Amino acid sequence: MRERVETLRQRLNLVEGEAYLTTTSHHLYYLTGFTGGEGYLIITGESIKLLVDGRYTTQAADEVWDGVEVILFTKIWEELPSYLKEIKKLWIEENVITVKFINKLREIVPWIETFSGADEYLYKMRMVKDEYERTLIEKAIDIAQNAFLKTLEIIRPGVTERDIASELCYHMRRLGGDKESFDIIVASGYRGALPHGVASDKKVKEGEVIVIDWGAFYKGYVSDLTRMVVVGKISEKAEEVLQAVKGAQETAIRGAKCCMTAKEIDALARNYLKDKGLAEYFTHSLGHGIGIEIHEMPRVSYMSDEIIDKNIIFTIEPGVYLPGEFGVRIEDDVMMTENGVIVLSSLDKIFRL
Amino acid sequence: MRERVETLRQRLNLVEGEAYLTTTSHHLYYLTGFTGGEGYLIITGESIKLLVDGRYTTQAADEVWDGVEVILFTKIWEELPSYLKEIKKLWIEENVITVKFINKLREIVPWIETFSGADEYLYKMRMVKDEYERTLIEKAIDIAQNAFLKTLEIIRPGVTERDIASELCYHMRRLGGDKESFDIIVASGYRGALPHGVASDKKVKEGEVIVIDWGAFYKGYVSDLTRMVVVGKISEKAEEVLQAVKGAQETAIRGAKCCMTAKEIDALARNYLKDKGLAEYFTHSLGHGIGIEIHEMPRVSYMSDEIIDKNIIFTIEPGVYLPGEFGVRIEDDVMMTENGVIVLSSLDKIFRL
Repeated sequence: MRERVETLRQRLNLVEGEAYLTTTSHHLYYLTGFTGGEGYLIITGESIKLLVDGRYTTQAADEVWDGVEVILFTKIWEELPSYLKEIKKLWIEENVITVKFINKLREIVPWIETFSGADEYLYKMRMVKDEYERTLIEKAIDIAQNAFLKTLEIIRPGVTERDIASELCYHMRRLGGDKESFDIIVASGYRGALPHGVASDKKVKEGEVIVIDWGAFYKGYVSDLTRMVVVGKISEKAEEVLQAVKGAQETAIRGAKCCMTAKEIDALARNYLKDKGLAEYFTHSLGHGIGIEIHEMPRVSYMSDEIIDKNIIFTIEPGVYLPGEFGVRIEDDVMMTENGVIVLSSLDKIFRL
Repeated sequence: MRERVETLRQRLNLVEGEAYLTTTSHHLYYLTGFTGGEGYLIITGESIKLLVDGRYTTQAADEVWDGVEVILFTKIWEELPSYLKEIKKLWIEENVITVKFINKLREIVPWIETFSGADEYLYKMRMVKDEYERTLIEKAIDIAQNAFLKTLEIIRPGVTERDIASELCYHMRRLGGDKESFDIIVASGYRGALPHGVASDKKVKEGEVIVIDWGAFYKGYVSDLTRMVVVGKISEKAEEVLQAVKGAQETAIRGAKCCMTAKEIDALARNYLKDKGLAEYFTHSLGHGIGIEIHEMPRVSYMSDEIIDKNIIFTIEPGVYLPGEFGVRIEDDVMMTENGVIVLSSLDKIFRL
């Protein structure tokens, strides 16, 4: 994984007198392998130093990749300056570093002349996945899918949304997931029209469609899926919307090619739904990157000019929400390749009880 | 809950030309009742304005308490200045507001002369719980305890730590918990010596002691408990340490009085363990506040001079960790009253299979 740091050095063009400093837990993991979450990572052209406190020294030493030097600190504000002695320009995460932190930094390393924002560089790097990351995401998908199939066994009229979420969380852990990758959404009937309706005590009823949006964490990487469960006989309207969303999702999957922009991919599904007269009910973006976080770059939105290059892993999840009636969303995790996207998830799109 | 805002105004001494601005999700909930997590809350001497985007307007309008005005924003950086027109001094969370955010603020509201740190005020307010908060924490404790009793049924030699954590997470949800309040710790045998050993695939064995540290979220409030499970016959040494930690915990509970300092309370348990020759293996603080977050003020540590006033809810959790051998921790949630602490949790301290 040494090459990640190498890439960062090149992107930032780290020359003598410059360093990159991060405390962002996800970046610590991405750049060093350390999962403890708390530490100070200092990268210069020559060295990679991870400063951790006494709780983490053993763990960090076990976890970090070759080339990362683990250093125990006791009083960070007294010890940090010695690691930034020759530095004139420091790259920091301006979207993470707090006012308190930067004020303290300015006080203890007054010789640093420039603080520059490194945010975008890291997030753009993390957007493109390597083989190892893909393997972990595939495993997280596998866990989520198998847990879903187990959970299906208990879904029938009368069970609550909470019952369904409890089963998913149980099976994902049993199957090797570390936990759910976000608050599980189980939204049945009229609750389906809330795009983020986390599981409630509402009972599932005959004739409803259920939106289930869930995912697992596996060794620091996530999956994110949405499937529809149809309980018995549903209205013609519900059936039409189901098919429309399925059609929109499949159209986007078939049409997404390297290296379209995010908004071109978003438009594939949005235009399909426009033809069906449903575009106004598709009230969110088509998708988002996944990886160490559940929402990463790129945003696959109608406003984004981001180029979707190969090895970017993201969700394709069109949805239609009819307030007071029901909602439909179908979501897969896909990876862009030279020949279009491959779908990493494999469950049927719609399950009928 | 209007009085929370009133208290804040008094503590900050908010006069004309001053306002408090927060985006911290926990503070939004504490001060307005809004659970959506994303928004901009502006409090002046006269008004309480919560700015949210289109995803949250309905939810915010449903949830906020009397006196909070919900305002829809579309482009925050263009609209924010109009709400800060007369403001010369703005209170912000310096430990939360990022460099990016403050730079943007300085640009769009150049007439603001002073930015002051409000961090401490909010955390100190949240430290002291009202009746409503206590009720929610008690419910979160109730859910965690009942889930534990259900989980006990499956614990026997051969089950993995992961199995145990899966059961806990399942039952906490089924019993009305929204999710676990932190990553469940199940650490058996030698793994118990890791104070934060989250559940692994290790199997529980005859003769081991298991540290189980878990809690539930209930309507935004947490519980946090640790219990020991003894599997069959254990060594004399393990039994001694178990009794020592239990004694230390009970001593701290009996001895903690209003209004001792945090370090005086910490010392009750630490001195007890010192007498047993175990103090050096008690490598963390005695406890911490709980509430909306799993770790709140006060830190009940040997270094803290914080006064533990009545209605502060916190954990008492001494632990002894013998690297390579085993670990023992026992944790209850307690509330300070005029007559010492009352223990909100009620499970036996040690369970023997």
